Amino acid sequence: MAKSTALPKSPFRSPSEREKDRAEKRDALLLAAVRIFNERGFHAASLDDVAASLGVTKPVLYHYLGNKDQVLFECVRIGLDQLRDAAVQMRQSPGTGLDRLKGFLQRYAEIIVGDFGTCVIRTGDESLSAESRQRFRSLKAEIDRALRQLIGEAVADGSVAPVDVRLAAFTLAGALNWSARWYRSDGPASPSALAAQMVQFLCSGLAPR
Amino acid sequence: MAKSTALPKSPFRSPSEREKDRAEKRDALLLAAVRIFNERGFHAASLDDVAASLGVTKPVLYHYLGNKDQVLFECVRIGLDQLRDAAVQMRQSPGTGLDRLKGFLQRYAEIIVGDFGTCVIRTGDESLSAESRQRFRSLKAEIDRALRQLIGEAVADGSVAPVDVRLAAFTLAGALNWSARWYRSDGPASPSALAAQMVQFLCSGLAPR
Repeated sequence: MAKSTALPKSPFRSPSEREKDRAEKRDALLLAAVRIFNERGFHAASLDDVAASLGVTKPVLYHYLGNKDQVLFECVRIGLDQLRDAAVQMRQSPGTGLDRLKGFLQRYAEIIVGDFGTCVIRTGDESLSAESRQRFRSLKAEIDRALRQLIGEAVADGSVAPVDVRLAAFTLAGALNWSARWYRSDGPASPSALAAQMVQFLCSGLAPR
Repeated sequence: MAKSTALPKSPFRSPSEREKDRAEKRDALLLAAVRIFNERGFHAASLDDVAASLGVTKPVLYHYLGNKDQVLFECVRIGLDQLRDAAVQMRQSPGTGLDRLKGFLQRYAEIIVGDFGTCVIRTGDESLSAESRQRFRSLKAEIDRALRQLIGEAVADGSVAPVDVRLAAFTLAGALNWSARWYRSDGPASPSALAAQMVQFLCSGLAPR
């Protein structure tokens, strides 16, 4: 039997495999953390419990994510990134201003009822360190500006009735943000069905047309 | 000079004067507490600071209001009582279902941007003891039921377009509740002007009529 010329598979992982493995562990820890924060509230949640839910110790969690403030900031940053991506994407979409605004509101609501979006809404400024709080506020202000821009453009092209843009942005965001408090992922409505119903309601208004 | 037959004014206070004095002190402590809770967040706020803001010590505050959980519960109870009173009053008002619903939403928004209403919205269940949490939830559920009833009646008399009542209640409440996060009492709009704008926006919807 001739010797194989192929190299044996190395028992050592390549740099790219190590990076992928690290990213997977980090993501799993973040997801465990955000769910425990959302379920118990940030103050009552402990990093020991987060680590234990994945069968590791707190030092392992520290190694991947840092301290409790850093973990929380990373959770809200992910949620805010999802919202920003949605805004960027909708700004480039075809259709009227109202079409783009509706598209953004739809995606916005879907994100808010997700793990990281819910964490954005439930996190009070006072839970974060001074530095993280500043970054948190500035990321939130960016989303707020994007929403106002979409509303302003929709008013400008006549597809949305004239409104006070700032007030409309707060009112729409509030209507959707609140779902982070009442939405249950084990309920009958999927995030996207629920989002569509809320957006339709906000477009039509209460009074019969 | 003839002696006066009138009795001299007693330096001791009557029971009703003592009761009035006690109620005034209690109200002042509650207002100081709710403002500090709203400003700093419940966890960061200390009863020492609340007491100090009125020039008294923490034992004095304990005497009037009890422990921190009891103080917080009393603050949210006052806000929820205001909301319930508004619902009871609007249920008895004349006009169409939409008129009554609008009247309630108007008053609801005014209460939410007030000190005690803001505290209701900013208080997470996890901040309260198990017993207070149960009472907090049941009082909130009562307001929620009242709102759903008003929406249901307005749909029934045709003054509001057919909607999923539960979803409409969450969406309307969310739109107004959110003002507890962004409203600034030093801003240009009065609570009632702001409430009227939000209610008008929610009635008309985004799409031009």
